[in-house]
Amino acid sequence: MDEIKQKIETANAETVRRINEADPVLVDIAPAGEVIPGLHDRMVLHSGPPVDWQRMSGAQRGSMLGTALFEGWAKDAGEANDLFASGAIRFEPNHTHQAVGPMAGTISASMPVWIVENKAFGNRAFCRQVEPSQQFGNYRDDALQGLRLWRDLWAPALKAALGRMGGLPLKPIIAKALQMGDELHNRPVAASSLFANAMACPLIEANVPKDRLLATLRYITNHELIFLALAMAAAKASADPATGVEYSTVVTAMARNGTDFGIRVSGLGEEWFTAPAPRAEGLYFPGYTKEDGGADMGDSAITETVGWGGFVLAGATGILALVGGTPEEAMSYSRDMRRITVTASPNYRMPILGFQGAPVGIDIRKVVQTGIVPVIDTAIAHREPGHSIIGAGIVRAPLDCFKKALLAFSRKYQPNRT
Amino acid sequence: MDEIKQKIETANAETVRRINEADPVLVDIAPAGEVIPGLHDRMVLHSGPPVDWQRMSGAQRGSMLGTALFEGWAKDAGEANDLFASGAIRFEPNHTHQAVGPMAGTISASMPVWIVENKAFGNRAFCRQVEPSQQFGNYRDDALQGLRLWRDLWAPALKAALGRMGGLPLKPIIAKALQMGDELHNRPVAASSLFANAMACPLIEANVPKDRLLATLRYITNHELIFLALAMAAAKASADPATGVEYSTVVTAMARNGTDFGIRVSGLGEEWFTAPAPRAEGLYFPGYTKEDGGADMGDSAITETVGWGGFVLAGATGILALVGGTPEEAMSYSRDMRRITVTASPNYRMPILGFQGAPVGIDIRKVVQTGIVPVIDTAIAHREPGHSIIGAGIVRAPLDCFKKALLAFSRKYQPNRT
Repeated sequence: MDEIKQKIETANAETVRRINEADPVLVDIAPAGEVIPGLHDRMVLHSGPPVDWQRMSGAQRGSMLGTALFEGWAKDAGEANDLFASGAIRFEPNHTHQAVGPMAGTISASMPVWIVENKAFGNRAFCRQVEPSQQFGNYRDDALQGLRLWRDLWAPALKAALGRMGGLPLKPIIAKALQMGDELHNRPVAASSLFANAMACPLIEANVPKDRLLATLRYITNHELIFLALAMAAAKASADPATGVEYSTVVTAMARNGTDFGIRVSGLGEEWFTAPAPRAEGLYFPGYTKEDGGADMGDSAITETVGWGGFVLAGATGILALVGGTPEEAMSYSRDMRRITVTASPNYRMPILGFQGAPVGIDIRKVVQTGIVPVIDTAIAHREPGHSIIGAGIVRAPLDCFKKALLAFSRKYQPNRT
Repeated sequence: MDEIKQKIETANAETVRRINEADPVLVDIAPAGEVIPGLHDRMVLHSGPPVDWQRMSGAQRGSMLGTALFEGWAKDAGEANDLFASGAIRFEPNHTHQAVGPMAGTISASMPVWIVENKAFGNRAFCRQVEPSQQFGNYRDDALQGLRLWRDLWAPALKAALGRMGGLPLKPIIAKALQMGDELHNRPVAASSLFANAMACPLIEANVPKDRLLATLRYITNHELIFLALAMAAAKASADPATGVEYSTVVTAMARNGTDFGIRVSGLGEEWFTAPAPRAEGLYFPGYTKEDGGADMGDSAITETVGWGGFVLAGATGILALVGGTPEEAMSYSRDMRRITVTASPNYRMPILGFQGAPVGIDIRKVVQTGIVPVIDTAIAHREPGHSIIGAGIVRAPLDCFKKALLAFSRKYQPNRT
C-alpha cells in the first residue's frame, strides 16, 4: 500500500508540474477543417463525452441542426435531423480532437477556430467562437448570423493581426485577469478587455481595410465573453500534456454534453467516466424558469480542470450578480477546492485570499474521500432545441464520475487487491 | 441642540444626494489656459491647500521647476527657482480653479487637461495628465518628454476622438471597474483598459493619421493609470455641486501638497482646515527607503472624498501587491469607512461585500466622535526635488483637520454656545 501511495504521489506531482509549466500562446485562427486533426467534411465535433443522437440533449441537437444549416448540408432542420439520425453526418467529442467548445460546443470544417499552442510542450488546442445563440441550441437563420460574421469578417481580420504580432502570450493576461475579478469561465470580462487592448494596434498595423477594421474592433471591444474561448483553449492546451501519467489520480478533463457529465483521469488515459449531467442552481433570464433548463452542458469545465472558474470564485464575486449566491459562499468554494486538489498554482493567484495560488490538480481520491465535488460556473441552455441562452448558475460535478474512475484506477493499478 | 442636529441631518442628506446624483461625462481635452477659469500665463496650479514657496515640499518644488522649463519660462532650474521665489511666476491651488492634479498636481497654460462635465448639475472639472516623473518632482529634460508627447501627440488625437464621439459617460465605466478589482485611485487598471477600448474605434473614425493613431492607441492601451485622471476629474465634478450646503458637516475635498493636508467641508464653503501632511506606510521601489519619502501629496484624495480609493479597498485587494497589507485589513478599512460616512452609494457597489454601496459623504462629526480617519491610497514622492515615483502605500488623514473644521462649524452655526 505504501509503495503504490508513493507512486501516486510522485505521478501526481508530475501531472501538476506539467499543468503549471504550461505556456499557452494564441498563435492563429483558421478554419477548423484545415487545422483540427481528424475533422472531416460532414462531421461535427461536440462538447462532453460521446453520446448518440437518441440520447443527445435538446440544446445540443438544436446546435447540431444549426451547424448543418450553417454549412449548407441541409435545406431545413428536418432534413438536417435525418442526416444526423441516419449517420450521414457524423459527430464525435471535441476532446478526442484536441478541441473544446462552450455549451453544445459544435465545431464544423468551415468554422474558424482559435489555435492556442502550449509553448512549453509543443501541443496545440482549438476552441470555437463564443456566442449566445447557436451554441445554446438556437438554429433559426438569424441565430446563425454571428457564425457567418465570425467566419467572413471578424476571424479573418483577427487572423491577420495575429500574424502581424507573431502570437499573443495568454499566461500574463490570465494571471492579470484573476487579479481583476475574473474567474475566466462565466466572467472573463477583464481578460476580454485586455485582449481587445492587445489586438487594437496589430489590427491597424496589419492593414485590415477600414470598414473591416472598425467592425472587428467594435466586435472585440464589446464582447465581454470573447476571452472564454481563449481561456478554454489555454486550459485544454495546459491539460493535454498532463494526460497519461501512469499512476496519476489527477483529473485531466471534465466535460458535459447536456446528457452526461464525464471526467478523464491522467493515469487512465482517454477513458471517460460518466454520470448523468446535473442541473445548475442559478438565475434565469426573464421569461424562463428552472423547468425550462436543460442538464449541464459544455467543455468549458476544462477551465475548472486547471484551477479557474468555480475554483477561483473567491476572487470573482462580481459574478454573483449573474449566478446568485453570497461572497461567503464564493470564499468557501475556493477554500473547499483546495481540499480536493494537489497543489496551488505558482502563476495564477487570488488577492482576496492573500495571493494564494489557484487550486490545481483535482485528485479523484480526495474527491471520493471528502465527498467534496468540483464547483463549476456554468450557463444554462433550454431543455428543448431552438433557444438561445436562458440563464447562468453554479453546478457541482457528480460524485459518481469520481467513484467510477477510482474503481477503474484500482482495477488497473491494484488488480490483485481484494 | 435637537434643532441643529435636525438641520445637519437634512443638510447632509442634501449633500450626499448631490454627490450620488452626479453624472460625470468626459467631454473634451484642451490646453489648460484655454479652459480653466483664472489660469493665466506665468501661473502654475498645484495640488493641496495653499502654500508659499518657502514651505513648499521638495517634490512639489521640483515639479514646479519642471513646469517652468516645460513652458519655456526659464532656461534652467536655477532661473526657474528665482522666478517662483520672487513671485514672477505665481501659483495657486487647483481646487480654487475647478481643477485637480495627481501628486504635485502642476498645471500650466499649455498643458492639455481632461475636461469632465457633470451633466446632472452643469459644472465642469479639470485634471492633468498622469505620468510617473514630472508630477513627482523630476525636472530633468527627459522627465518632461511625456508632457511634450501628451501636448503634441496623444492629447490632440484623443480630443479628435472625443469630438467624434460627443463625449464618454464615466459613470458606467466607474461602476463596472469597481466590480473588476479597481479602487480607481492607485489601481484604475480595469477602468483604464475599458477606457482604451472605448476610444479605439472613435480614434479611427476621427481619421487621426495612422502614425499618430498608432502612437496614441499604444499609449492608452498600455497606460494602466490613465484613468486616474478621469476618476479624479469625475470625483471633483461630483463633489463641487455639494459645496456650500448650509449646516452640512460633509467633507467636499481632501488634498495634500506634501507639506499640509487640508479638507473642505460643505457647510463651511471653500475654507481649508489643515494639519501637517502625514507620511504613507507602504512599499518602496528598489533603491529607496522610508527615509527618502516625502510627506503625502496630491489632489487624488478627491477620489476618497466621494467614496472610492481607500474607501473601497475591500474590492481591490490586487492593490496589496503594490501597497502592502492583508485582505483582512482591506476589508476592515471599507467597513470602518462606513462608520464615518453618511450613506452608501446607489451607483458604485462592491461585490465582495455583497454589492454594498461605496461609503459616501465623510461626516466630520463622525470622524471626531469615533477617531476613525479616512483611509487614503497614495503614491510616494521623494522628499527632495528631482525624483520620479519612489513607492506607494496607504495614509490616514490627520484627525486635526477634522477637529479644526468641527470647531469652525460650531463657531459658525452655534456662535452662542459656550
